[in-house]
Amino acid sequence: MKTTYGGNLTIKNLNEEVTLYGWIANKRKFKQQLFIDLRDSSGIVQLVLTNVSDPLLTKESCIKVKGKVQKRLEANRELKSGEVEVLVEEYEVLNSSKQIPFEINNKNSATANEDIRLEYRFLDLRQEKMLENLRLRHKLLLNVRQYFDKNGFIEVETPILAKSTPEGARDYLVPTRRKGRFFALPQSPQLFKQLLMAAGVEKYFQVARVFRDEDLRKDRQPEFTQLDIEMSFGGQEEIFALCENMWSEVLKPLGWNIKTPFPKMDFFYSMEHYGNDKPDTRYGFLIEDYSKELSTKYNKKFVKAIVFDRQVQENFAIINETFKKNNGQHLDIVEFDKLSDTEKALFKVVADKEKINTPYVLISANDDEDDALKSLGAIRTLLNDLYQLADPNQLNFLWIVNWPMFEYDKETKTYAPAHHAFTQFEESTVKYLETGELNKVRAKSYDLVLNGFELGSGSIRIYDPKVQKKMFDILGISEKEQQSRFGFFLKSFDYGLPPHNGIAFGIERVLMILTQSQSIRDVIAFPKNAKGVDLLTSAPSDVTKEQLDEYGLEVRK
Amino acid sequence: MKTTYGGNLTIKNLNEEVTLYGWIANKRKFKQQLFIDLRDSSGIVQLVLTNVSDPLLTKESCIKVKGKVQKRLEANRELKSGEVEVLVEEYEVLNSSKQIPFEINNKNSATANEDIRLEYRFLDLRQEKMLENLRLRHKLLLNVRQYFDKNGFIEVETPILAKSTPEGARDYLVPTRRKGRFFALPQSPQLFKQLLMAAGVEKYFQVARVFRDEDLRKDRQPEFTQLDIEMSFGGQEEIFALCENMWSEVLKPLGWNIKTPFPKMDFFYSMEHYGNDKPDTRYGFLIEDYSKELSTKYNKKFVKAIVFDRQVQENFAIINETFKKNNGQHLDIVEFDKLSDTEKALFKVVADKEKINTPYVLISANDDEDDALKSLGAIRTLLNDLYQLADPNQLNFLWIVNWPMFEYDKETKTYAPAHHAFTQFEESTVKYLETGELNKVRAKSYDLVLNGFELGSGSIRIYDPKVQKKMFDILGISEKEQQSRFGFFLKSFDYGLPPHNGIAFGIERVLMILTQSQSIRDVIAFPKNAKGVDLLTSAPSDVTKEQLDEYGLEVRK
Repeated sequence: MKTTYGGNLTIKNLNEEVTLYGWIANKRKFKQQLFIDLRDSSGIVQLVLTNVSDPLLTKESCIKVKGKVQKRLEANRELKSGEVEVLVEEYEVLNSSKQIPFEINNKNSATANEDIRLEYRFLDLRQEKMLENLRLRHKLLLNVRQYFDKNGFIEVETPILAKSTPEGARDYLVPTRRKGRFFALPQSPQLFKQLLMAAGVEKYFQVARVFRDEDLRKDRQPEFTQLDIEMSFGGQEEIFALCENMWSEVLKPLGWNIKTPFPKMDFFYSMEHYGNDKPDTRYGFLIEDYSKELSTKYNKKFVKAIVFDRQVQENFAIINETFKKNNGQHLDIVEFDKLSDTEKALFKVVADKEKINTPYVLISANDDEDDALKSLGAIRTLLNDLYQLADPNQLNFLWIVNWPMFEYDKETKTYAPAHHAFTQFEESTVKYLETGELNKVRAKSYDLVLNGFELGSGSIRIYDPKVQKKMFDILGISEKEQQSRFGFFLKSFDYGLPPHNGIAFGIERVLMILTQSQSIRDVIAFPKNAKGVDLLTSAPSDVTKEQLDEYGLEVRK
Repeated sequence: MKTTYGGNLTIKNLNEEVTLYGWIANKRKFKQQLFIDLRDSSGIVQLVLTNVSDPLLTKESCIKVKGKVQKRLEANRELKSGEVEVLVEEYEVLNSSKQIPFEINNKNSATANEDIRLEYRFLDLRQEKMLENLRLRHKLLLNVRQYFDKNGFIEVETPILAKSTPEGARDYLVPTRRKGRFFALPQSPQLFKQLLMAAGVEKYFQVARVFRDEDLRKDRQPEFTQLDIEMSFGGQEEIFALCENMWSEVLKPLGWNIKTPFPKMDFFYSMEHYGNDKPDTRYGFLIEDYSKELSTKYNKKFVKAIVFDRQVQENFAIINETFKKNNGQHLDIVEFDKLSDTEKALFKVVADKEKINTPYVLISANDDEDDALKSLGAIRTLLNDLYQLADPNQLNFLWIVNWPMFEYDKETKTYAPAHHAFTQFEESTVKYLETGELNKVRAKSYDLVLNGFELGSGSIRIYDPKVQKKMFDILGISEKEQQSRFGFFLKSFDYGLPPHNGIAFGIERVLMILTQSQSIRDVIAFPKNAKGVDLLTSAPSDVTKEQLDEYGLEVRK
């Protein structure tokens, strides 16, 4: 077995005879000497070969060398092994490489076109940054597992060939040889984990693969990994503490120090001052309300504003585009000096508080309050992208609490659950079920937000069959549908289902933030591209007629 | 959060005020007192309630109690908590249970009909033995992960939405909204893990979900969990040591002491003396050859026999049935005393060696040597089932080495790879490729066997593109097919693919042996039944026409 790793050689190994295996990351000739940067999973070390001229020693070839560790004339401070080099006595080309299709960058993830990177993923992963990402992913998930084990949780694997219960996103289907019958890939192990609570497991977790056949957007993947947690007999404070300690203990050995407990923010406060439900609190410039003072001037019911610390005129086009896309009606971007005295007085309070010397004010006026807030919230996020307001090394965890139970769909004029149909009502607001004021009903649910991204979402679950029935009734799910879709789960309510609650975190999301990656694809070994295609293997692909026949399927022309 | 677990209470907790949550495993009235066995994930403790008569306190109801720990009048030695009980001062029925459909056995897995157990899996899992199985599974996989991490391996998650490359078993297909294009669920991460070696990961492992749409047999599952391992720059001895240490270190904290290194057995020796390639070496009664001496008597080319230590007449029917099913031609079961003197002399050697006082001889005569061996091998396995020859607590790990590269199919008269098409040839036998004696070509592959089950299968992989091409040519895979099925993988051979090798173990198989379960379903939380149906959720199930329309699919009538 390979025992010596070139990247780990230091001055302590001086004069040792070593055998190394690795890849030619770089090479250059100097007089009679050939210098090779040999890369393996530990990093890079310099090799020196004398009087060698071998056409098989191409870049990215896999080689084996024997030689002696010696001191470099000039140390390379960028390499761990930079003080030494290996004077090669024997070498063997194990597998010579053709000309590679793109440059492999040994420090960062490539700047090459992503399509070609994905097509040759096995070369792309040779980049130091990409291997580091895979290693971080491994360590993070191992730490997670050790944490839960230590706390008495057990990991239970739930089925991937599961039942189709369409809601929200599309289920991926899996045909079976029982004609017309299909498995579905799980969008989450939600019902299985609740059934494990019914089974008395009490403390469950799972690093689970989940699937959603959603319309593709820039950074979506059809399959991803979810850290799934469920526990019996605990309340919100208990699961908060469990998760806070988890992130703190898991991230500490990886170099991040997280303060606990995490701050909590009311859902409505977040909407009002950040214009969304996943606020990035690493930077200020909060949204304030000036409707009372300015609605007459703008002739709109709601006026909201952000006081910013620099002029943004050069980015006006993109700011305005973002504003319009988010149903913004009227946007004003005004220099402080050009404001009226009344307005100056209004905004100066904020400018002083945030210590802004030359304030600029971004004002959103709208007849719909939600739209006024969301459009300005989208601008606030954009301003961070444009001006890097947030410290990329800072991790701001934040709980969002006190969620509405229902979301009103303006188009269909119906209510749907904001989280999901298994979430408990906040007792003090149950009275609004009777009065029909569904917008005032609150849910026992919570989100964990990190740096402006939703990391995870959880809730206290319903365990009283009468309450669950009431919920389904409100959502207009008929008795028959309740039985056909959720019958297997509802059965457990009749046999001592305990009080329970849980949460699930998106692992790729966390890793993307930790590694400061531009794309979720940089933290997945073999991702699909933005169109849902694996460019490496060309999947999805045609299948044979014989395969379809087995399943009694026909593809419509 | 729940901090006190009833099953853990001991005399040390005497007089403590405790709050417990759990399920009513059993109850009985005695005068004014109600005794309840309260079960939670830690086990059972006795509760005493006085003057309580509550119809909601049914078996399997979920309750909360407050009370004081007191000494039991008579200790129950079968319970960890058996010296104490809790005198209940307050109780709350959290969720009352209906009459349960089958008895929940608190010691072993149920004797109830398996269909009803699977339909109410959340109740079935309340049985102590089932929860123990889940817990063992969790601990085993955690130990595995810690072992590999310690040895510098990283766990990399490979795709579940993958490319269909049909071979051997059927691929499960996943339709996509790109009409006519399908993902396939992986039968193993084989090509992805080899690509990770091309990527320079060097040491990979994964606890991977894999899928095979095989014709169902008694103990098959459409999805199962595989411990997948691959490493670069190591040979057979290195991976043997890695795996041996792994099983030893992983099982030790779970209570099993495994001796390393594991013995090795030649494939052909196993076939000749055990009649199969996964011998159970916990008991003797090996097959010996007597063709030279007895083929004339039986008028068959091959005569093989087992000398057994007791008479088996009462099981003759089932023994003969097994014999015939395995192409047995002529079976004789003979008392030692009824043998001729020449035969006595022959078999006495074996009887003496195995210290058998009253030997019985089972003789298989056949014109095909394979069939002579396999039919007798099947009987040997059956004898263990019938007479429990093996110690169930003993774990006999064994490597099977020196495999043939190709398997001859008597019906199609063609050769197929015995392992798979990516396995290296044993150098000394490459000459037989030229002479066309494919049966003499040996593979660098190896199986790990435990107590008569194949635990895992691995090989040294081909990394020379010319050798891989030769292999595909021998198997009659055209250039075009090579490209369309394996092109993405073959590309990596041109860019410095390193020498590598690996293995994969079936996790359910291991767990079944360790827990001495009768069925693989007892070590899976939510299994399919023998017909491939999840009786709990009724999957696979019908889907809506809308769902099929999305994928442009029609189910043929």
